[in-house]
Amino acid sequence: MGSLQNQKPENASTGATIKPLDPEEFRRQGHLVIDFLADYYKNVEKHPVRSQVEPGYLKERIPDSAPYEAEPIEEILRDVQKDIVPGITHWQSPNYFAYFPSSGSIAGFLGEMLSTGFNIVGFNWMSSPAATELETIVMDWLGKMLKLPSEYLFSGGGGGVLQGTTCEAILCTLVASRDQMLKKIGRENINKLVVYGSDQTHSAIQKAAQIAGINPNNFRAVATTRVNEFGLTADALRATIESDIESGLVPLFLCATIGTTSSTAVDPLGPLCDVAQEYGIWVHVDAAYAGSALICPEYRHFLDGVEKANSFSFNAHKWFLTTLDCCCLWVKDPSALVKALSTYPEYLRNRASDAKQVVDYKDWQITLSRRFRSLKLWLVLRSYGVANLRKFLRSHINMAKNFEGQIGMDKRFEVVVPRNFATVCFRISPIEIGGGNQQMVTKEEAANNFNAKLLESINESGKIYMTHAVIGGVYVMRFAVGATLTENRHVNLAWKVVQEHANALLM
Amino acid sequence: MGSLQNQKPENASTGATIKPLDPEEFRRQGHLVIDFLADYYKNVEKHPVRSQVEPGYLKERIPDSAPYEAEPIEEILRDVQKDIVPGITHWQSPNYFAYFPSSGSIAGFLGEMLSTGFNIVGFNWMSSPAATELETIVMDWLGKMLKLPSEYLFSGGGGGVLQGTTCEAILCTLVASRDQMLKKIGRENINKLVVYGSDQTHSAIQKAAQIAGINPNNFRAVATTRVNEFGLTADALRATIESDIESGLVPLFLCATIGTTSSTAVDPLGPLCDVAQEYGIWVHVDAAYAGSALICPEYRHFLDGVEKANSFSFNAHKWFLTTLDCCCLWVKDPSALVKALSTYPEYLRNRASDAKQVVDYKDWQITLSRRFRSLKLWLVLRSYGVANLRKFLRSHINMAKNFEGQIGMDKRFEVVVPRNFATVCFRISPIEIGGGNQQMVTKEEAANNFNAKLLESINESGKIYMTHAVIGGVYVMRFAVGATLTENRHVNLAWKVVQEHANALLM
Repeated sequence: MGSLQNQKPENASTGATIKPLDPEEFRRQGHLVIDFLADYYKNVEKHPVRSQVEPGYLKERIPDSAPYEAEPIEEILRDVQKDIVPGITHWQSPNYFAYFPSSGSIAGFLGEMLSTGFNIVGFNWMSSPAATELETIVMDWLGKMLKLPSEYLFSGGGGGVLQGTTCEAILCTLVASRDQMLKKIGRENINKLVVYGSDQTHSAIQKAAQIAGINPNNFRAVATTRVNEFGLTADALRATIESDIESGLVPLFLCATIGTTSSTAVDPLGPLCDVAQEYGIWVHVDAAYAGSALICPEYRHFLDGVEKANSFSFNAHKWFLTTLDCCCLWVKDPSALVKALSTYPEYLRNRASDAKQVVDYKDWQITLSRRFRSLKLWLVLRSYGVANLRKFLRSHINMAKNFEGQIGMDKRFEVVVPRNFATVCFRISPIEIGGGNQQMVTKEEAANNFNAKLLESINESGKIYMTHAVIGGVYVMRFAVGATLTENRHVNLAWKVVQEHANALLM
Repeated sequence: MGSLQNQKPENASTGATIKPLDPEEFRRQGHLVIDFLADYYKNVEKHPVRSQVEPGYLKERIPDSAPYEAEPIEEILRDVQKDIVPGITHWQSPNYFAYFPSSGSIAGFLGEMLSTGFNIVGFNWMSSPAATELETIVMDWLGKMLKLPSEYLFSGGGGGVLQGTTCEAILCTLVASRDQMLKKIGRENINKLVVYGSDQTHSAIQKAAQIAGINPNNFRAVATTRVNEFGLTADALRATIESDIESGLVPLFLCATIGTTSSTAVDPLGPLCDVAQEYGIWVHVDAAYAGSALICPEYRHFLDGVEKANSFSFNAHKWFLTTLDCCCLWVKDPSALVKALSTYPEYLRNRASDAKQVVDYKDWQITLSRRFRSLKLWLVLRSYGVANLRKFLRSHINMAKNFEGQIGMDKRFEVVVPRNFATVCFRISPIEIGGGNQQMVTKEEAANNFNAKLLESINESGKIYMTHAVIGGVYVMRFAVGATLTENRHVNLAWKVVQEHANALLM
C-alpha cells in the first residue's frame, strides 16, 4: 500500500482521470457488496455480539496515512472483514438485546440505497420536489397509522418532518418555544426560562437545553417513584412549576416520554398536558422507542392526551425497520418552527418558495442540507404494510412476555418494573444473594454489585448482549427485544445463558 | 393496493410474521436495486436536469394512506421510476452545474451501504469500537492530506469528527466558544455576545447563532467589496469589533470562509486570525465547498493562517466523492466541545468511558445516535488514492477554466468575479443589453433582470441547470463544475446552450 510518505512525483500520474460513477463498474462493485452483506447477515450469529477488542486495536492494523495510489475493492472488502467486523458490536445479531434495537430491514436498506444513489440535497422544494412531497405524504400516512389528531397532519394544518434523531427533534421544538416565549417576555429574560422533564427523561432534553442557551440551573429533572411506575406525575410537575414561578422564573417546555430509556415507563400525557396548558408550557412528547408500538390499536391509549400537546416524535430507526437515522417529528404549528429556524439567502431564492406554494424543510430543522430520508420510510410502509408491521411488533412484545414468564419461574430472579412493551428490566433478587459484607454495603448495594458482575460476565461471553440501567437506586439488566432477526428460540437461548452465568456466580 | 380504509379484520392475518432481513431475499432485492441505480446512471442524461413538475404533483399519484397489505419490490421500483424520478432534480447528471455539487461515487455509495448494512449506533466507543476508531484514524489521514497543523490531529492533541453538515459543525463550535466565554463573564451576559461573519458568509452561521441563543441583534454580517474580491478584510472586522466593544458588547466568534457560496471568495485567514486573537475570539474556518481542493499543493496556501484558528471544517459530500452527509470538522481543543456537549447518563456508562481511555463522539456533536460515516470516507480515500483525487479535482478546475475561456471569447458576456476554484460567476454584460427603460430601471437593474430571465429560460429547457447569486448588487449565473459524471464535452455543450438562449433573448 502506498502512503503519503513514499509518493511518486505528481506529474507521473499522466493517465486518464478516474471514473467514479461508471455505471458498469457501479453494477459490478454494487453486486459484490450486496453479496458481502447478505453473507454477513447469514453468518452474524457466529460473531460475539459485543465486540471484544481493546481500545486502540485498529491503530495497529491500519496505516497512519492515506494511500497515494488506488486500491481494489476486493482488497478493501477483505480488510472490512478482517479489521472492521471484529470491532463491530453486532446490533443486527438476533442475540442483541442491549440499549434499544437498531432495527434494519431489506426495505429500509433499499430505501437508503436509492436515497444515496440519487444523492440529491433536498433543502427546499425546488432542489428536488419529490423529496419534499414524498416526505409530506409519508408523514401524513404514518400520522394516520398512529391516529394522531388531525392538527398534527398537513391535511389538518400541522405537519411532519424527518429529522435525524430525537435530539434534533427536541432541539428544534425547544428553540421554537423559546423564541415564542422570548418574543412575549423579552430576550433579556432568557436566563429565566425553565425546561422540565423527569429523572427518567432521556439526556437529549438536557443537551438540547444546553445547546439552546437555557441556563443550566434551570433544567428540572423532576423525581419519579416506584409507586407511580417511574412516570412523571402531574402533581410533582405542578409543584416544581409553582416553586419556579415563586422564584421569578418562567416555565417554558416539558418533555413527556412514552417509553423511557431506562425502564420504558410512560408519563401520563393527559394530566401533564392539563398542567402545562395552565402555565402556557410547550409540551413535546418523546416516544423515541415505544412510538412504533402505538400503531397497534391495543397500545394507542398511551398516546391519549397528545391532542393537548404541541409536538410528538418517534424514531423509526429504533423499532420500525427503518435504518438509522430516521426520527419522525410532527408539530401542530409549523410556523413556530419556521419562525425560529428560517433563513432565506439570495442564492436559495426561487419562484415556488417566493410564492409560498411549497414546504421548504430547511426551515423545519437545524441543518440546510438534508438527505432523501422519506424513501426508506415509504419503502418500509409499502414493502411490509400496516398489518405485517403490527404483527411484527407484537411478535417482539410476545417474545419479551416469554422472557418475563421464564424469569417468573426462577425464584432467584425478579422483574423490577412492570413491562410495558418489549423490554424487560430484571435482576437477581437481593434475597438470593444474601447479606454480602454487612459492614461495608447494604443488602441493596450488594445486589447491585452482584447484578453488575453478572451482566458483565454474560456480555463477556459474547453469546448475547444486554445493557443496564439504575432505576430508583436499583441496578437492573435490560432485556430489549427488537433486533429484526430475533426469534423465540433466541430468547429461550438467552434465558439459558443468563441462568448459566447466574449458576456459576451463585455457586 | 390496500389502504387503511378497506382493511380486513386484524385477526385474519394469522400466518407467519415477515422476515425483513432474510439473507437470500436481501441478496435478491439488493441486486435488483443495484441494477436499477446502474441503469439510472447510464440514462441520467435523458432526464431534464431540473425537475419540471409543479407543486403538488405527487399527491395526485400516491394514495393518501399507507397500504394495509405488503406490496412487492418490483411494483415499488416501477413507482420510483414512474412517480419519483420525474420529481427529482438530477444532482448526479453531468449537466448539473447548480448550487455546489453533491458528488457521488461508487466508493462513497458502497461505504454508505456497508454503514447501513451493519446499522450500528456508534454514540460511544463501546457501542461499536470500529466506528469510533476508524473515524479517528481517517480524520487524521485527511488532516494530513490537507496539511493541517498537527494541533488539529489526534496525534497532536486535537482531533477530527464527522458531522452531518456544516450547520452542525458551526453550531457545535459556537456553543463550545459560548460556554467558554460565559464561564468567564457570567451567564447573565449571554445577550452581549457577538458573532461575526461577512455579508458573503453562509446563512448557516446566522442560523447557528439563532439556535444557540445569541441575541439576533448581535449577528454581524460585515460588508465586503469588489475591491477585495468579496473577502472579509481584517480592517473591516477590527472596526466592527471595536464599535461593539464601545457599545459594551462582547466579541465571541468569527466564521471565516474559504470559498463562499455566492462567488467562492476567500477570506484572508492570517490577518483575520491576528485580529481575532487580539480580542480572544474563537475562529472557525468554513471551507465547506473549497476544502476538497486544498489537498492539492497549489491550493493549500488558501489555508495559511489556519494554525491561528480554533476549528476547521469542510464537506466531503460536496466535492469529494463522499455521498451526503459527511462534514469533516477538526478542533484544536476537543475538551471545549466535550464540556459544552457532554452528557453521561447511567444507561450509557461503561468501563472504557469511565477509564477515559476512549473517544466518545456523542460528546463532540449535537445528537446521541450517529451513523458509521467514516466507512464511506475510508472507502473513498482507499478506492481512489490521493493522487487520483487530486487529479480528479484538477480536472473539474480545468473544465471551469475552459468555460471561463469560452466566456472570454464572447464579448457579450463577462466573468463578474475572479474564479478561484471550479465555479464561474458570469453574466451578459449591461453594455450588451442596452439601457432598458431608463425611466424605470437603471442599467444595472436592467442587466439583473435580463440575466435572471436568461437563467430561467436555460433552466426551463432542462438541458443544463445552474443557479444564481447576487454579488455586490450584481445578479450572476453560477456555473459550478463538480458533478462526478461531468466531462469537458458537457461543459462545451453547456456553453452552447447558454449562447443559444442568449441569442434568442437578445434578438
